[in-house]
Amino acid sequence: MLIKQLFKIRHNVYLDNNATTQVSSAVVRKMNRVLRRNFGNPSSLYKAAINSAIILDESRAIVAKTIQADPSEIYFTGSATEANNNIIKTLAEHHYPAKNKIISTPLEHASVISTLEYLAGKGFVIEYIPVDIKGRINMDALSAMIDPSTILVCCMLANNETGVIQDVKLAAKIAHDKQVPVFSDCVQALGKIPVNVKDLDIDYASISAHKIHGPKGAGALYVKNGNFISSFIHGGHQENGLRAGTESLHNIAGLAEACKSVSHYLGKAKKIESLKKYFIRELKKIKPDIIINSPEDSTCLSNTVNIVFPGVNNAYLMATLDYFGMAVSAGSACNTQSNEPSHVLKALFISDQQARESIRFSLGTGISRFQISYVLEVIRQFVNGELPPIGMLEPKMLSKEMIFDNNTFIVDVRFWHDRLLIKSIPNAHEISFFSYKKYFKHIPKEKNVILVCQTGFNAPIVAYEMKLRGFKNVSFLMLGIVGWKQANPALYESYAGTNVQKLQA
Amino acid sequence: MLIKQLFKIRHNVYLDNNATTQVSSAVVRKMNRVLRRNFGNPSSLYKAAINSAIILDESRAIVAKTIQADPSEIYFTGSATEANNNIIKTLAEHHYPAKNKIISTPLEHASVISTLEYLAGKGFVIEYIPVDIKGRINMDALSAMIDPSTILVCCMLANNETGVIQDVKLAAKIAHDKQVPVFSDCVQALGKIPVNVKDLDIDYASISAHKIHGPKGAGALYVKNGNFISSFIHGGHQENGLRAGTESLHNIAGLAEACKSVSHYLGKAKKIESLKKYFIRELKKIKPDIIINSPEDSTCLSNTVNIVFPGVNNAYLMATLDYFGMAVSAGSACNTQSNEPSHVLKALFISDQQARESIRFSLGTGISRFQISYVLEVIRQFVNGELPPIGMLEPKMLSKEMIFDNNTFIVDVRFWHDRLLIKSIPNAHEISFFSYKKYFKHIPKEKNVILVCQTGFNAPIVAYEMKLRGFKNVSFLMLGIVGWKQANPALYESYAGTNVQKLQA
Repeated sequence: MLIKQLFKIRHNVYLDNNATTQVSSAVVRKMNRVLRRNFGNPSSLYKAAINSAIILDESRAIVAKTIQADPSEIYFTGSATEANNNIIKTLAEHHYPAKNKIISTPLEHASVISTLEYLAGKGFVIEYIPVDIKGRINMDALSAMIDPSTILVCCMLANNETGVIQDVKLAAKIAHDKQVPVFSDCVQALGKIPVNVKDLDIDYASISAHKIHGPKGAGALYVKNGNFISSFIHGGHQENGLRAGTESLHNIAGLAEACKSVSHYLGKAKKIESLKKYFIRELKKIKPDIIINSPEDSTCLSNTVNIVFPGVNNAYLMATLDYFGMAVSAGSACNTQSNEPSHVLKALFISDQQARESIRFSLGTGISRFQISYVLEVIRQFVNGELPPIGMLEPKMLSKEMIFDNNTFIVDVRFWHDRLLIKSIPNAHEISFFSYKKYFKHIPKEKNVILVCQTGFNAPIVAYEMKLRGFKNVSFLMLGIVGWKQANPALYESYAGTNVQKLQA
Repeated sequence: MLIKQLFKIRHNVYLDNNATTQVSSAVVRKMNRVLRRNFGNPSSLYKAAINSAIILDESRAIVAKTIQADPSEIYFTGSATEANNNIIKTLAEHHYPAKNKIISTPLEHASVISTLEYLAGKGFVIEYIPVDIKGRINMDALSAMIDPSTILVCCMLANNETGVIQDVKLAAKIAHDKQVPVFSDCVQALGKIPVNVKDLDIDYASISAHKIHGPKGAGALYVKNGNFISSFIHGGHQENGLRAGTESLHNIAGLAEACKSVSHYLGKAKKIESLKKYFIRELKKIKPDIIINSPEDSTCLSNTVNIVFPGVNNAYLMATLDYFGMAVSAGSACNTQSNEPSHVLKALFISDQQARESIRFSLGTGISRFQISYVLEVIRQFVNGELPPIGMLEPKMLSKEMIFDNNTFIVDVRFWHDRLLIKSIPNAHEISFFSYKKYFKHIPKEKNVILVCQTGFNAPIVAYEMKLRGFKNVSFLMLGIVGWKQANPALYESYAGTNVQKLQA
């Protein structure tokens, strides 16, 4: 199938299912019902609230069954990030100073890595397990690293950025031989490969609702019975006294409802994988020099592939795909405020340059061959230079001369909260990214328009739109103002923030 | 108005609005819309997700305006409990060991008190401000307590159990004169009295959605610009890097929607207060010896009254009210797993006995005079002995002889998770509180049926139902198995848990 007239047939293709997923209709209906009918506080001592307690109980049983746990081993949290933070912090606090070492893979989610960095600042020793070129941990190294000071081994089941699956069962065996418990972040694995905490023989695990078509704001922590656990939010007796605060009952019911579909999603993995393989195969024909960062064997999630497009700025390609209705990402949505290359790709020996040419495609359960063909066609036209080009400015190129040139018109499309963190390019005109089209009539078409944002990902989206609306000279600042500040510290120091004005919509 | 035939006209009257409130239709609709349409991750860098970022931004502006804050001063959390925990813990950690004292009112919510107790265990000095008989803090004492080691003053704006309002503005002035910041839990105040953080001149504050007809699982922390704050959940950059984790967008939108109605709720305060005064006035006619634990002047929330019913076990009265459709509480829903008298009532010099005779009525915005009359009529019949009596067993009375008597039939109605914590009375028959009516046919009508639960609040609900269904001798164990264990340690040690069997439904 070929799609020639892209501009007439923009399709929405959501290829960022590792960031979050569409909430399923069944989940929305269930949550709606709970919101309308079951407002009673599950802790209250009267019949009007008892249905709330029942829903809480039933939800716990469903979630437990999904990962082969006992209901008494499930603690609901407000997110997997919260679960990850709290299990690591409470274990660390409990053992310190008698023990002070935590061993982790270098590929963990930001919620684990940042927590470990925080603990490193408190005097804990954090050691990262060496990995092979695809990110799989070295088991011999793990074994050698565990010593009597070791509190915990953190090993995610599947990685969000590349999809690499770890042999957590073997890691647990190695750790248990030395009496060290294992925590596994199973957020990305759930719904894509079977998650069986008993078979994996892990001590702690976390899952999240919004990666399996459930609501955002609902996670669960699994703690194997008999393992250490202590309060992480103090207050009422909720969640057995461990996580105080009135339960978000509709979110919990939504998590349970989403869990009911996990086996259905697992049944689709083969179809998704064959579409992913088709995508990679065709992509190699369009651009033979692509590099696949993900494993290409059974140690990869069926839906995920992370690809280097040599010579292509990923923000530019993402903006192009976005213009034509496709959502992809450069890495974790949790790291989008920084312009540092992803710590996951860095751990895979991928250069900073290559990391900035990498894009993650994460397919959803409803993906079709038609959609994949459409994505391929847009990439083909992009790679072959058939789409209208927009300019890209390296941070060094946006010099004092260019900034103060009369023909230059700088547009700052950042969010207001980003503007609090770092000053703008001098002479910039601030507009709202939330309604950027409204400002186009006030931007001179004949000038050299330079779009700037915080880290280089929003500006190309606006640039693309302007180019297609007839602006002749449109370019965007690569790596954003953060990158510009790093490349031009003296310029930033002297001029940043001067003569910045708000453009009227 | 008199209601004679109570049994025919059970009305649902919800008088526990300080525990939680019914989610408003506008909030449900808004959340439903966000769940269906805006699944995009607010952190993602493509147009499909931009509406999510817009909703997040708009919600922050609405919440900020509701308490007269700037949007940059609002951090969304998963609950007010989380906000309370985190602001206190991060401040404590930041200042320790240079400073180590936190000053608090003794009436704070469990989420503050438990956090302070946790810190006390870590070497912090926690000092409680003396209060008068109605719980209002002594400002001279506060002033004298503040010294150079003081990190923070915690002073809630209005108390959840009695409704007492503190003069937080004056407390803040006193603290600021000595360069100490003030944190005020404004959860119960919001929607009942104006909450203006600028006018109060406080440094930190927390609010919760589910107390103002919003969803459970959504709170916000206010941090005055320029005040110290640090990450409390590590990971992604969400909430300016302070509270990582994908935002529960529908919950946040629900909080904002609820905030839009705050001024409407404030407009109803007068009507609610006049109904509360009518209730108290009429109650004094029915039972002249009642004692009002709440202030009876302007230092009390319009909707709240906490009352001692001398000689009346509050669990028994609550079960009666429950049977007739009325929901009230004995204190905070966050403390229902313990049979300790409320720490708030204790701080008001109320005896343990009186605390166990106290009930909190918290009226909602939709309360009517008819509903109040109905409540009064049920209480009148209860007080006058016109309702069928059920027996009450003091923990000491449930002796070895009674337990092993052939005519005794003990029914344990606890939740399964309560059963994990403490063993049952010997010979008990376990049934599920979630479906207790199903078991009635298996309970011998002629025997001396004793209902037991964890702390004495669920058993009378079942006892009441059985009495009205023709069981002749029905009684419940006051203070529950927890109280029985405390009163009979030797008996518990020797026999608890023996010959306990599950009854079939």
